Formats: sequence, C-alpha cells, structure tokens
Amino acid sequence: MDPVYLDNNATTRVDAAVVSAMLPYFTEQFGNASSIHAFGAEVGAGLRTARRQLQALLGAEFDHEIVYTGGGTESDNTAILSALETRSGRNEIVTSTVEHPAILSLCAWLEKTRGAKVHYIGVDARGRLDIDAYRKALGPRTAIASIMWANNETGTIFPVETLAALAHEAGALFHTDAVQAVGKIAIDLSGSDIDMLSLSGHKLHGPKGIGALYVRRGVRLRPLIRGGHQERGRRAGTENAPGIVGLGAAAALAQEHMEEENTRVRDLRDRLERGLVQRISHAVVTGDIENRLPNTANVAFEYIEGEAILLLLNKAGIAASSGSACTSGSLEPSHVLRAMKVPYTAAHGAIRFSFSRENTDADVDRVLEVMPGIIAQLRQMSPFWDGESKTRTAFTPTYA
Amino acid sequence: MDPVYLDNNATTRVDAAVVSAMLPYFTEQFGNASSIHAFGAEVGAGLRTARRQLQALLGAEFDHEIVYTGGGTESDNTAILSALETRSGRNEIVTSTVEHPAILSLCAWLEKTRGAKVHYIGVDARGRLDIDAYRKALGPRTAIASIMWANNETGTIFPVETLAALAHEAGALFHTDAVQAVGKIAIDLSGSDIDMLSLSGHKLHGPKGIGALYVRRGVRLRPLIRGGHQERGRRAGTENAPGIVGLGAAAALAQEHMEEENTRVRDLRDRLERGLVQRISHAVVTGDIENRLPNTANVAFEYIEGEAILLLLNKAGIAASSGSACTSGSLEPSHVLRAMKVPYTAAHGAIRFSFSRENTDADVDRVLEVMPGIIAQLRQMSPFWDGESKTRTAFTPTYA
Repeated sequence: MDPVYLDNNATTRVDAAVVSAMLPYFTEQFGNASSIHAFGAEVGAGLRTARRQLQALLGAEFDHEIVYTGGGTESDNTAILSALETRSGRNEIVTSTVEHPAILSLCAWLEKTRGAKVHYIGVDARGRLDIDAYRKALGPRTAIASIMWANNETGTIFPVETLAALAHEAGALFHTDAVQAVGKIAIDLSGSDIDMLSLSGHKLHGPKGIGALYVRRGVRLRPLIRGGHQERGRRAGTENAPGIVGLGAAAALAQEHMEEENTRVRDLRDRLERGLVQRISHAVVTGDIENRLPNTANVAFEYIEGEAILLLLNKAGIAASSGSACTSGSLEPSHVLRAMKVPYTAAHGAIRFSFSRENTDADVDRVLEVMPGIIAQLRQMSPFWDGESKTRTAFTPTYA
Repeated sequence: MDPVYLDNNATTRVDAAVVSAMLPYFTEQFGNASSIHAFGAEVGAGLRTARRQLQALLGAEFDHEIVYTGGGTESDNTAILSALETRSGRNEIVTSTVEHPAILSLCAWLEKTRGAKVHYIGVDARGRLDIDAYRKALGPRTAIASIMWANNETGTIFPVETLAALAHEAGALFHTDAVQAVGKIAIDLSGSDIDMLSLSGHKLHGPKGIGALYVRRGVRLRPLIRGGHQERGRRAGTENAPGIVGLGAAAALAQEHMEEENTRVRDLRDRLERGLVQRISHAVVTGDIENRLPNTANVAFEYIEGEAILLLLNKAGIAASSGSACTSGSLEPSHVLRAMKVPYTAAHGAIRFSFSRENTDADVDRVLEVMPGIIAQLRQMSPFWDGESKTRTAFTPTYA
C-alpha cells in the first residue's frame, strides 16, 4: 500500500516540474550569476524569470522587493533584526504567542541579550489574535510588529492587513511570517500595508534551502549576512541559482493550482475532519474553522498522547505530526494549543493533518479506516480514560 | 567549439554523480528530517552518511563538529559574530587585507557599528602574510583571528596551523575561511589548533546554497540564525537535505580526486602559466608560486584592462575572471593585488584562470592559442602601451 503523506505543513514533495526546471542549473547553466562571462550571464536570465514568477504569486509591485534567503527562518530573523537596527529609538517588538520558533526563539534571545522588550499577544480558544491587546501594545517604542499570516499548527489565518495598518498608525514596521500561507491562499501585496513577508520554498513543493524575504520598496533593510554585493547588497553569498529557479517554478505552479487548493484540497480536509469527529468520541477540531488554511486540520484526541498516535499511524504508513517539526521530540504539548488554553488532556493528543494537491480521496479513506482502531487501542491503555461513558470535559470543540 | 571554463574558483559544475545523489531527496525522500515518521527518518539516514563524508574530507574528529549553513558567507559571518559574543571582554579581530568580502565587509560593519577593533594584517608582494605583524596584533583583547586557508584570487596558501597556534597563545579563537582550499588540498583537522573553518559546496562540484562551519568540540557557538533546534541548536531552519547529501557526495568525490587535483590539474595550470609568460611580454604571474593551490593561476598582463581581456576571452568561448565574482563590476583593481602592491598598470590587467578536474589539455591549448592575439589587440589600443621596446616596469614577476 502506498504511504499516505499528510504532513505538508512540515515540508512538501518537490514537484517533478520544479526538479526539471532546476536540473540544468546544476550541470549546464552552472555559472556564478555574478560573473561577467557567458556562464554567468545565462544564469542571470533564469534568475530574472524566477523573480518575476515569485513576484506574481505575491502580487508585489517591483521584482526587486524580493530578497532571496536560505529559508523562512533566515527571512524571519533578518526582518526582526533589521527593524531593531533601522528604527532608532525603538526597541520594542509586538508579536503573538503562537508564532513559529523562528520568531519566538529570536525574540527570547533579544529580550535576554539586547534589552529588547517583546509584547506577546495572546489568542482566544480558536486561536484568534486579541486585537485589542495588539493595538494597546503598539506605541512610539515599537520597532516592528510581526504576526504570522497563518498558523502552522491550526491553519488559523490572521487579519494581517488590519494588523499592518494598525502598526503603521504607531509608526512601526509590520512583518508577517507567511511561510504557511504563500501558495495556499491568494496574496496580493500591491497597495498593502505589509512591509516585510517571509516565505519558504519547501512549503510549496519547491526545494529546501531557499526562501525569500519580501521587502517593500522604501523600507530599509539591514543585511543579516554580509559579504559580496548579491541581492543589491541585502543578502551576501553566491546566488543559489537552482534553488531560486526552483522556487520560481514552484510559485508559478502554486498559482495554477490555487483554485484546486481552495476547492478539492479543502474538501479532502473537511471530509477527513468530519469523518474523524463522527467516528471517534472526544475528538475535537481546534483552530478557527471559519478562517483558516484550506489544507490544515488539527484534531485533538482527548486522553491520549499525540506521539503514540503518530507512531501507530506511522506503522500504518501514514505521516502526520503533532505541532511543528521544528519542535518535535519535545514532550510538552504544542505552545500554540497551550496559548489557546486547550486543556492538557486534549492538547497532548492533538494531531495535525496537513494536505497538499498531491493528496487523494484514497488518502482520506485510509486515515478514516485506521484511526478509530488506533485511538481505541491507545485509550485502552490510558490511565486518564475511563470509557465511553466519561463525562465530556469542559473543553468545547470548535467543530461539530 | 566547446566553451572553456576556467573560472572554477567562482563556482564549479555540479558533478553528475552529485546530482544523482541529490535527486531522490527532492521527490522521494523528501520528508522533513526533524519529523518523527518514516518520511523524516529515511532522510535522517542520508544526512548521517553525508556528515561522515564531509567529516572524512576534513579529518574532523567528531561528525557533530560540522554545522551546515547556507554557504561560505554565512559560515564566515557566523564564526566571527559568535567569537565576539562568546569571548567576553574581547572585542578585537585580527584578519588580513586579502580576505574575501564575506570577512572584510562584516569586519568593516563591526568597526562602524559595534565598536570592534579590527587589525588588518598585510601581505608581501607574493601575497604572503606578515607573520610578525600578525603576532604583534594578537593580544588579550583579541576575540578571534580569521585568516583564509588559501586566497581566492592568487591561490596563495597561508600557514594556518602556525597562525592558529599563535592565536591560541593569545587566548584567541582561530577561524579560517577555507572555501577555496577544501577539496583542492589535503586538510586534516584532527589535532589541529583550528577552532572554526568555513567551506562552501559549490566550490567543490557540489550544489550552491549549502555550506558548513566546522566548529571544534568544546568551542562555544552562538547561532546566527535562531528558531528550531536543527544542527543541535546551532543553526535553525529545516535541513536542506538534498544540499547536505550533495555536499557529502561532493566531499567524497573530492577526496577520490585529490591526487589528480595535485598532479594532472596542477600540470595543466603550470603549462598554461608557462605558455602565457613565454608567448606574451609583460605577462607576470602573481602570488606565491611555491605555496599555492594547484588549480589557480593569476597572471597580470601589463598596460591593459582586465575587463576588456575577459570580454574578448568570452567572445572566444573562454570563461575566466578578474578578482572575485563577488566584486565583479567594480572598476577598481582587486583589493588582493593592491594589498600585494602590484602596480596599477599590472593589477588592472590581472586575470585569474582557475582549473578543476574537468579541464583538459585542449582547454590549455585553446587559451594559449587565442591569448597572444587578444593581448596584442588590446595593447594596440592602450594609451599606456608604447610598444614591445618599452622598458620593463619596476614590478618584479614572481614567476619566469
């Protein structure tokens, strides 16, 4: 039986067409894009096409608003650090409690070593940002507000345009970690208030090791990596031509498949969620079901351990995850679900199923077939489970 | 006629075997190495093999001394910044005037914005470091000394082991930018005094966008990029599995071809140099011919412009360079040749021919065939050239 891959928020399979686009840049057009001879020049043309493909997916006004990086984490780090250095007299950051570690780890370190003050804005039980608290945290000392476009664990989408406008009212920059949003939902940065946006190639069927930071024209960027004059002096290092070309091709494909993502892929996700909740008691969908990514389902199975579920799913040839791949191995439940005040008995058993355009009806059937048995087996062994007669906890499902 | 590629210090063609090794990691073993399911686990095995391949090429004692990065520039930046943060009370850097921009640009910025004091140690006419000055610059305030293993423009090799021991005597860390050395000359870090070493995949027939920083066990590293716990918390961001596997395969191939690099490739380089000097007057080999990379020739053709030579070479299907690709486009002569006090009339006309194992005798023949005509044609037009009778300048060739 073919394995079932439902961990596309961790990483995606590189599209075969993307690999084809990249291949010539390894062995034929392999020159250094900064070189002045023909080997360099023919690479330059490919890079320009790729830049326009990514520009189109983002709706960016100018292609030079795109700065290539080594990935989403580097983009996030660059944006925050740049804001602190370029906004003199401002050393505060406003972010959320549910950001990716690429933001949260950096912020913790800036607080500890740089005297930065970080405001962590909370979310409600559905994962929606407390906009009032966000507004109050902004002020004349805010260098930057950084709120993710969509949460990697629950798929909850944040009102980034509104948040960006509020940040501008306070004279602050606005950055969004859109690593999970780009390629899944329509994005149009032309005329937006968003100053900086991070994205990652491997989340949209592009290669690993390449990402980008969108930097609106006129916004000063202080490079994180210094050296040669690549990327107009904003990110040094020999251009990763195969990676850039691959990201461009992936962006073009994502645009083509955007409607499918929001219809067929969404339907697969919805059918899985509905099926799980119908078949399994005390299975609770978390996140904001009215406003989230079309591909992400986060279901908490109460009174058991997520890691145990994943191991049994893995045995059945199904790949899913609990929380972020970047924090896997930790025994603590996800910081995102804790921020949503999901009770420990549920948060511990939360599983993220994340789809892509490669998934099929058969994948959903397969999970619905094996999951009830897995959950029943684990609950048998759980010291917290006292049978189907158990009174439901105070935790209110957001879906059912 | 096949084009002739003699710009391998700028970048190399990815070896076909390296591409083959990488390919499964795009579309088959595409999982996130940090994931706990089978898709992640099968990637992990490939990464471990790659790490051992690179470890073997470096002669590193422990495989976890290797930290993957996005490239040589990121490695260099990480090393220097880490030293300043982890060596409290020390804010001085000792480096050379002939480093790559990845070191020099960062140092300039640290001087300007961080109050760091940087000692730039000079070189002699052959590009050899002034060891006395180096020794005197080291002191109780030195956080790190960073001297390249081999110069990218002339191929001159520095006595890094001696320099590392001297740095340790002063209680400083020692880092070397070995981007040009790794894969070309034997390196054995076991028992060495070198604390950190930077390398880049695309300089040794591996992919672009991947590099590594060797960090000796026991040396504290402060990450440049913060987020997830990848690379033992030393460099965040989803592992670039195809890149890492490609770098490993490239390292294994480099080790296999090391003898060829230092015999056949060296002979090609020597024959080109000798042929050029014999056929063309006022052609001067720069650098330390007794102690340099086997693949690099830097020849200054007096009284003409390097960029003009490169354009005519390019027309003839030959790719070479003047100085570093990272600084191409600049009208100033190379900072390396200026540091060596090569007269402007010669430094302006310096061309770097850099070989790899892919080059052939036919490549050398072709350059020797076209070069005399190109130089004669340009000298005809040069206002500084007054014919073959011209008295030789004071500039003493290091080779003849």
